[in-house]
Amino acid sequence: MTQETIDRIRKFTEDRDWDQFHSPSNLAKSIVIEAAELLECFQWDNERFDEQHVKEELADVMVYCQNLADKLGFDPDEIINMKMDQNEAKYPVEKAKGNNCKYFEL
Amino acid sequence: MTQETIDRIRKFTEDRDWDQFHSPSNLAKSIVIEAAELLECFQWDNERFDEQHVKEELADVMVYCQNLADKLGFDPDEIINMKMDQNEAKYPVEKAKGNNCKYFEL
Amino acid sequence: MTQETIDRIRKFTEDRDWDQFHSPSNLAKSIVIEAAELLECFQWDNERFDEQHVKEELADVMVYCQNLADKLGFDPDEIINMKMDQNEAKYPVEKAKGNNCKYFEL
Amino acid sequence: MTQETIDRIRKFTEDRDWDQFHSPSNLAKSIVIEAAELLECFQWDNERFDEQHVKEELADVMVYCQNLADKLGFDPDEIINMKMDQNEAKYPVEKAKGNNCKYFEL
Repeated sequence: MTQETIDRIRKFTEDRDWDQFHSPSNLAKSIVIEAAELLECFQWDNERFDEQHVKEELADVMVYCQNLADKLGFDPDEIINMKMDQNEAKYPVEKAKGNNCKYFEL
Repeated sequence: MTQETIDRIRKFTEDRDWDQFHSPSNLAKSIVIEAAELLECFQWDNERFDEQHVKEELADVMVYCQNLADKLGFDPDEIINMKMDQNEAKYPVEKAKGNNCKYFEL
Repeated sequence: MTQETIDRIRKFTEDRDWDQFHSPSNLAKSIVIEAAELLECFQWDNERFDEQHVKEELADVMVYCQNLADKLGFDPDEIINMKMDQNEAKYPVEKAKGNNCKYFEL
Repeated sequence: MTQETIDRIRKFTEDRDWDQFHSPSNLAKSIVIEAAELLECFQWDNERFDEQHVKEELADVMVYCQNLADKLGFDPDEIINMKMDQNEAKYPVEKAKGNNCKYFEL
């Protein structure tokens, strides 16, 4: 995400004085609500879906993720790289390659 | 997200030959599954939460969002800005300021 | 659900003095958290799944639904029949038969 | 749930020839989608909510749970009692009373 996009998301919230509603817990609820709307695009059919609708719902999830990161002062790149370190340790290539088991089943 | 982080996420999937599991529908399921794990940090208490755990679960949601964008060839900045155009039209500042109604209630 | 099962669910909460955590909002969070754990049984494969695991996660969703109905004094049969009235009106047989469109697309 | 309600739910699906869409995986998606709509009643306010809306969304979750139990030939009382056995073992009264820790933290 570019800084310009991040700034636009922040300004949207500020202009509407919505920071008061953006508690971490409310944002976590919002992320799962939007994620379920995204899933709804695939509710009855895993193959065919409305691409424009997927774009809109995925964007909603991403915006709320950015809101939550902002609220808690997290740097997205930092937390993602921290988590990727964990994922790489939990799913070593030689064990995980080509299978979709959970790490504790590897 | 920096290009370096995006590349790391892509390489993680490639190295494990996991693209075969990353259908759009499976990724949409994964996003909501991780979003619910994030919400679990706030399940019984809206105020107190384990910040490290929130970082990890939020990162998981962000990674799967990036995976889905990648899979479908979406540019995150492009879809977010498209959606922000819609949001700004649905929630005009003069009507939405300081209240948390849905747009159809404004 | 039999009255005996309902009584067991209630007693479980009472014995642990957990009613204090069972606000409607916390129970709504819990339902979606457990629903996502149920979905996790189908995360990477729509066809093959661990039936025992599905039983456990579905039971968890049902228990929290009963908790929420209890908390708000709802009778499950009453609210379900009220909703079925709505569904039957929204999805008339002659229009909905054999297709999975949303009611506003019928 | 009374047998009459269960029969009504089954007839609704049959009359519309919707069993073809009711794969276990699609029903699991539907449960989480409806659970998130229920959570939306509490998105920005944990205390105030529209009770009628909560009734409708909770009923939707319960109907899809019944659909999935039906699809897989599960008896709701049986799976719930099986799970309550597990819960009672995981959360012994003397340890769990009055606290909301996960069982592995007790």
